[in-house]
Amino acid sequence: MLIVLKPNVTQEEVDHIVDKIKSLQLQPHVSQGVQRTIITVIGDEDVLREQPLEALAGVESVKAILKPYKLVSRETHPDRTIIKVDNIEIGGKNIVVMAGPCSVEGEKEVVEHALMVKKAGASLFRAGAYKPRTSPYSFQGFGEKGLKFLVRAKKESGLPIVTEVMDPRDVGVVAEHADVLQIGTRNMQNYNLLKEVGKIDRPVLLKRGMSATVNEFLMSAEYILSNGNKKVILCPRGIRTFEDITRNTLDAGVVPIVKDLSHLPIVCDPSHAMGIKDYVPAAGKAFIAAGADGLILEAHPNPEDAHSDGQQTIDFKTLVDLISSLRKLALALDRDIY
Amino acid sequence: MLIVLKPNVTQEEVDHIVDKIKSLQLQPHVSQGVQRTIITVIGDEDVLREQPLEALAGVESVKAILKPYKLVSRETHPDRTIIKVDNIEIGGKNIVVMAGPCSVEGEKEVVEHALMVKKAGASLFRAGAYKPRTSPYSFQGFGEKGLKFLVRAKKESGLPIVTEVMDPRDVGVVAEHADVLQIGTRNMQNYNLLKEVGKIDRPVLLKRGMSATVNEFLMSAEYILSNGNKKVILCPRGIRTFEDITRNTLDAGVVPIVKDLSHLPIVCDPSHAMGIKDYVPAAGKAFIAAGADGLILEAHPNPEDAHSDGQQTIDFKTLVDLISSLRKLALALDRDIY
Amino acid sequence: MLIVLKPNVTQEEVDHIVDKIKSLQLQPHVSQGVQRTIITVIGDEDVLREQPLEALAGVESVKAILKPYKLVSRETHPDRTIIKVDNIEIGGKNIVVMAGPCSVEGEKEVVEHALMVKKAGASLFRAGAYKPRTSPYSFQGFGEKGLKFLVRAKKESGLPIVTEVMDPRDVGVVAEHADVLQIGTRNMQNYNLLKEVGKIDRPVLLKRGMSATVNEFLMSAEYILSNGNKKVILCPRGIRTFEDITRNTLDAGVVPIVKDLSHLPIVCDPSHAMGIKDYVPAAGKAFIAAGADGLILEAHPNPEDAHSDGQQTIDFKTLVDLISSLRKLALALDRDIY
Amino acid sequence: MLIVLKPNVTQEEVDHIVDKIKSLQLQPHVSQGVQRTIITVIGDEDVLREQPLEALAGVESVKAILKPYKLVSRETHPDRTIIKVDNIEIGGKNIVVMAGPCSVEGEKEVVEHALMVKKAGASLFRAGAYKPRTSPYSFQGFGEKGLKFLVRAKKESGLPIVTEVMDPRDVGVVAEHADVLQIGTRNMQNYNLLKEVGKIDRPVLLKRGMSATVNEFLMSAEYILSNGNKKVILCPRGIRTFEDITRNTLDAGVVPIVKDLSHLPIVCDPSHAMGIKDYVPAAGKAFIAAGADGLILEAHPNPEDAHSDGQQTIDFKTLVDLISSLRKLALALDRDIY
Repeated sequence: MLIVLKPNVTQEEVDHIVDKIKSLQLQPHVSQGVQRTIITVIGDEDVLREQPLEALAGVESVKAILKPYKLVSRETHPDRTIIKVDNIEIGGKNIVVMAGPCSVEGEKEVVEHALMVKKAGASLFRAGAYKPRTSPYSFQGFGEKGLKFLVRAKKESGLPIVTEVMDPRDVGVVAEHADVLQIGTRNMQNYNLLKEVGKIDRPVLLKRGMSATVNEFLMSAEYILSNGNKKVILCPRGIRTFEDITRNTLDAGVVPIVKDLSHLPIVCDPSHAMGIKDYVPAAGKAFIAAGADGLILEAHPNPEDAHSDGQQTIDFKTLVDLISSLRKLALALDRDIY
Repeated sequence: MLIVLKPNVTQEEVDHIVDKIKSLQLQPHVSQGVQRTIITVIGDEDVLREQPLEALAGVESVKAILKPYKLVSRETHPDRTIIKVDNIEIGGKNIVVMAGPCSVEGEKEVVEHALMVKKAGASLFRAGAYKPRTSPYSFQGFGEKGLKFLVRAKKESGLPIVTEVMDPRDVGVVAEHADVLQIGTRNMQNYNLLKEVGKIDRPVLLKRGMSATVNEFLMSAEYILSNGNKKVILCPRGIRTFEDITRNTLDAGVVPIVKDLSHLPIVCDPSHAMGIKDYVPAAGKAFIAAGADGLILEAHPNPEDAHSDGQQTIDFKTLVDLISSLRKLALALDRDIY
Repeated sequence: MLIVLKPNVTQEEVDHIVDKIKSLQLQPHVSQGVQRTIITVIGDEDVLREQPLEALAGVESVKAILKPYKLVSRETHPDRTIIKVDNIEIGGKNIVVMAGPCSVEGEKEVVEHALMVKKAGASLFRAGAYKPRTSPYSFQGFGEKGLKFLVRAKKESGLPIVTEVMDPRDVGVVAEHADVLQIGTRNMQNYNLLKEVGKIDRPVLLKRGMSATVNEFLMSAEYILSNGNKKVILCPRGIRTFEDITRNTLDAGVVPIVKDLSHLPIVCDPSHAMGIKDYVPAAGKAFIAAGADGLILEAHPNPEDAHSDGQQTIDFKTLVDLISSLRKLALALDRDIY
Repeated sequence: MLIVLKPNVTQEEVDHIVDKIKSLQLQPHVSQGVQRTIITVIGDEDVLREQPLEALAGVESVKAILKPYKLVSRETHPDRTIIKVDNIEIGGKNIVVMAGPCSVEGEKEVVEHALMVKKAGASLFRAGAYKPRTSPYSFQGFGEKGLKFLVRAKKESGLPIVTEVMDPRDVGVVAEHADVLQIGTRNMQNYNLLKEVGKIDRPVLLKRGMSATVNEFLMSAEYILSNGNKKVILCPRGIRTFEDITRNTLDAGVVPIVKDLSHLPIVCDPSHAMGIKDYVPAAGKAFIAAGADGLILEAHPNPEDAHSDGQQTIDFKTLVDLISSLRKLALALDRDIY
């Protein structure tokens, strides 16, 4: 921790700051410069992080030296984590594709959708039983009944199921029915939900909050890991910026950063990142070229009839073409596709 | 709803769109221009809003005409809502000040803090028993025990209590102990939590999500009202922007907008909006001059010892001075202060 | 300057960094911690700032200790700067109001507008002869002829003139005709223009770039001061954020920050900050309550006929009422109005 | 144009709006709905765009139907534009790589750099003679002398030259010496500069403003085309968002959008988009996979000695490897590389 003092700091203030740091069993080092005095504290930065050092008289600014996360960091875990779902490895050499409609739309429908997705060449099936909707008047999902439909879809198609959980009270039942639990963008900092999925033994696909920094994103993963569940898949899905021509702004740049900072696998969501179906294939390719370990896509046989998110949902033919392009791309990047 | 068609739209596509709209019992009106054909649909926009019109072939863009919220809107409720907490009216002529530390720090401490806040001239006491913290390694609050301390603080000081609820499972117990339930910025779109506080009969202070648009903010309030609870206080608290010199960017501009669009009272949080204690008084005055009905402030007798948020917490003397300035300001604005 | 090294930095890399710093005649201080080694360099940070230290092998991050600006800083100039325009003091105890239409609309019109503004109680007249327009097909202003109309407006009304200069080639002619030269938001980092206005002896109203940080804003002022012109008025005017319900996001929070960091006067523009005329008065009051030294307002006798920016332009009656409210507010803040 | 009226609009106000539109020789169509009255105007939207319709009493909002640009639009020019620089086609099947140091660093140096870039396999050489620097105390470039060094570099290497012009007064001299004129991010809305480069017959590489929307970006290109110069290359280079872990946020998502809306070629800048050299290759691949026609890269034999931007400058070996990866990627995308 580096503490920069104000130009007019008094000796009394300096002494008080030094005493405060020593009272935490840490060792401060004061350097007197021409324009500023600074105090460097090397040691357990976590202890200091909890202190409101900026509230001390005479302090101009405080600069952290270490990252606030540990378990998700490549420093403590240099090898990349590979998460197995059935026989599929996420985070390994091969790229995975998860696809399906935004919502579970009925039992017959979800089975049909899973078979379509399987036929197109994807490896996991995604569909939402619980739906977080901006409007209280929008379709809110089939809930627990939808989970049972998803089990049926898995049975028919053989594809493992990815589905969202929104409420700490539902973690148990979702974990019973699904293979991967998704935490949505609006719940990235729903800490009690993170704690609950941290206690189960199922992979968690953690979506990036729509305005979460990379540090906050990794801290949310840290919540899950620190509660015991090491199987977290990071999922960039676009961020909110000043640009409103698309629903979100594609955050492909975050892929090399997160791969540099963390050992966790990264599967990206180009559908939400763009919000416009025509731009989804280009966005998916950009994510993969940037180094992502896979994609999660909204796909539907007939997007104009989708119960939700139809405007960003690609149709069957586009899904087939995209997977074929991704295969060529993966090979050019010395990877392959599941 | 206005549907703008692509320049090269075919007659077949136009017919398909028209049929789709008619199948929803709505009446489309097609206008052929030189450069674009547009379809206007006047009627129940809610029905259309659920349809992925952008997914239809030939559609270039879709523009909504009506706002997506109803119950929170001044259109359906032109008079301003006044919410009574004990004998204090929030949203009326007089400005209210809610103040207290970020966290409940112990039984003795919270009583002392409430008495201090009372003496400084504030009308409600705020302190968190449940704390949403970015790091799993940070102090997570006293939980239910903290709620009991707050009851004690009310008994000693006479001030009604504002405290945060983070989990749908805790809504009952928090409602039993507190006078106003706060929904934090990270939970503004935690829809299951919104539904739960929508079912109780206690005022809810709803913080704006750190990157929520005004429309989303009002839609979250709509969730609560549509579940039955009409007592919602809107709370701007700064937004996230490119500027990082402060923790957040003061969103004083949202005050006149929200007052124009909604009848709900607005109490603002300058502490989080700035994140730096020296700038809190100026920010508080800006919110009030912009038309806010009150402020919620982090205050502590000794900010450098606060368990959380010390860097943005003002001390007792600053609180006294600020309330005195706010009184003068209120009078200049033809209001007064409680 | 604080240089944080990577966890796996080699001794060779450390030596190379130390040599590099010594070769600049600076003295590095290496501290070996358990998790990180850091190098502190106290001395002339400007020399280091020019070096791409992050490009050195083994460097994880570099943190500056000093602010990059000097002349605009309160550290080197603790007293507030007051700028005189005719007999009006900007930055002193009294608040100033500058008002007028967005554009010069003709000779007769501009005289009429200046007389209106004078009658409403404002102290300076603003109108644009050169207009930066997003579209090449929009009205581009009267140019030099407009400047002559402005001289006429001053003669008739007695009000000093504020007008924009967009091109380094026009600085001379604008300085001949106007009292205050405005640099627009899109030109805040037009460095050659800043250098030219730095060489003249006229006050400059420098608008904040629509996505400029406070540091960049002050660095642009530093460009002008370092070229010799000390008379710079800082002008926040809203920033660009994710919120699109208004044209820009009101940046009232920047006022106390800039007053803390710099000695220069601050006059704010609520018209552009909101972009919607009905919200301009509340925004203007928020700026003043936050500590601004004045406002610059778009006002027109008949906004619907304004040549540009009509949607954010207030009419005469609103201007009169606003100035009356500002007077009451100024008194409550222990200031007055010109 | 769609004009949505307020719920409480009076007949008088409606009549006034209708008259106003008719006075512009346009034909309004009024539709009375249950909740809103709307007025549709089909015809020359440009005429209406200049009118402050929001300033008319009774108007709630105004929604444009047509895009504000014409010449840059694919609607008026469906075929993609290919720009020839010497014998290199930009915007065609093959991807181009432009590379070189941020600044011209001397005559000997620039020749050496150009030869290095040539050897690495790039097709154009970039280096800045005029440098826009945030600080007035930073190295400001060699100016006109630097242009002469660039001519020498071309002579020795055979590579065409890309270099920045910052001032309308320098357009002539830069056009004499360089093959492609670059307009920097801070000058994207320096309209007088755009007009000047619009009058010459040299390709212009127009960088996206750091917080410019896609519409504003295309409108700036429209300025150049409308002044006569049709040879504009659009250059996304990262945008400013809340995320500060990198200098900018990679705007790869803009590539498919701009290719959809405009016929102009797109060459992207991953160096500025990321600002950290280790992330530049991944970012460059993402841009290409998203559909870009080329990259412009900062490269230097020894980045730690670069006069500017060293932290984001890749070294020779990285450039060679990146071009080799890009070739594989291009083939996977059915393109090739120059």
